[in-house]
Amino acid sequence: MAEYIESLQRLVEQFGRLEGVGKKTAVRMAFSVLELEDEEAEAFAASILDAKRRIHLCPICQNLTDRPVCSICEDLERDQGLVCVVTDPKAVIAMEKVREFRGVYHVLHGLISPMNGITPDQLKIKELLSRVSEQGVYEVIIATNPTVEGEATAMYLSRLLGPLGVKVTRLAYGVPVGADLEYADEVTLFRAIEGRREI
Amino acid sequence: MAEYIESLQRLVEQFGRLEGVGKKTAVRMAFSVLELEDEEAEAFAASILDAKRRIHLCPICQNLTDRPVCSICEDLERDQGLVCVVTDPKAVIAMEKVREFRGVYHVLHGLISPMNGITPDQLKIKELLSRVSEQGVYEVIIATNPTVEGEATAMYLSRLLGPLGVKVTRLAYGVPVGADLEYADEVTLFRAIEGRREI
Repeated sequence: MAEYIESLQRLVEQFGRLEGVGKKTAVRMAFSVLELEDEEAEAFAASILDAKRRIHLCPICQNLTDRPVCSICEDLERDQGLVCVVTDPKAVIAMEKVREFRGVYHVLHGLISPMNGITPDQLKIKELLSRVSEQGVYEVIIATNPTVEGEATAMYLSRLLGPLGVKVTRLAYGVPVGADLEYADEVTLFRAIEGRREI
Repeated sequence: MAEYIESLQRLVEQFGRLEGVGKKTAVRMAFSVLELEDEEAEAFAASILDAKRRIHLCPICQNLTDRPVCSICEDLERDQGLVCVVTDPKAVIAMEKVREFRGVYHVLHGLISPMNGITPDQLKIKELLSRVSEQGVYEVIIATNPTVEGEATAMYLSRLLGPLGVKVTRLAYGVPVGADLEYADEVTLFRAIEGRREI
């Protein structure tokens, strides 16, 4: 039936575009939308457009925000000279849960991955370099995931940052190797920050 | 961050309303929407509104359709006197995959479940009864799931349909084809033995 009701099929395809949504999940979600009240479905559609319209990248740290500058970069109580470099906005959420880190972030929006055709120029590395050279950053903590690509990106960044005279550190291996930062527990993340080492 | 970007938080909540979507999945999907191109997000929002606007229940079988009468009820090559009663539109999809059933359907949109406050009058039972008494139906196959609620609903329907002089049947129970006997539960095996047929 998903095959012969065109508008349902289109909705299934739209859900299928989202990251990690397979065919079965997409079908289940599309049916679920049909069970919403009209006003609920309208609110759902509006929230998609609204989020897309309001949310953009912070011009300083490249994290998602709905303000001119994100609330972390704007917070004068945070140490703007201590920059934690992360892969994506989800990693910022994970780090913020620790409540111990009082510096700021820089979001790369990906990792260098020649296998997947992702080169350094597709990431927010240029922005990081100009930030470090122009805005009094004294330490960069590289908090990419401890995976092959995360390590490669960390090495690449440390080679670019070294000549700028900034201290470059890496999260300690308190983070379980091969895991995703998003799912690390808070204690592990805290130990990892505490035990960070210069690279 | 999902906590402090309001429009992102609203989007997470909207995804969380869908059946079987937990907090983590809702967050992942909301981020995924932010990664869509503007036109893709617009198409997504439009497909929600479009599906809700176009799709309604077929006045005959109560299945979802975007036509005045659904394509199965409209199909003159199908036996309109043989009605298979199912719980929801997904069950119609499952049955249609068999490509053997040449009758038509009746969708209940739920099962009787006093525990969850679902009473017979909330299901499309009234529509089934008037269909059977007025439109020359000679057999009703009850294909609700073999669960407690599915059985209770089947029993309830058979008591209402009996007096109308229609033949009422139930899908056979048994060992799923291709399955391993070792993993079949005892109730299923018992039913399979009970329903054994000469070969």
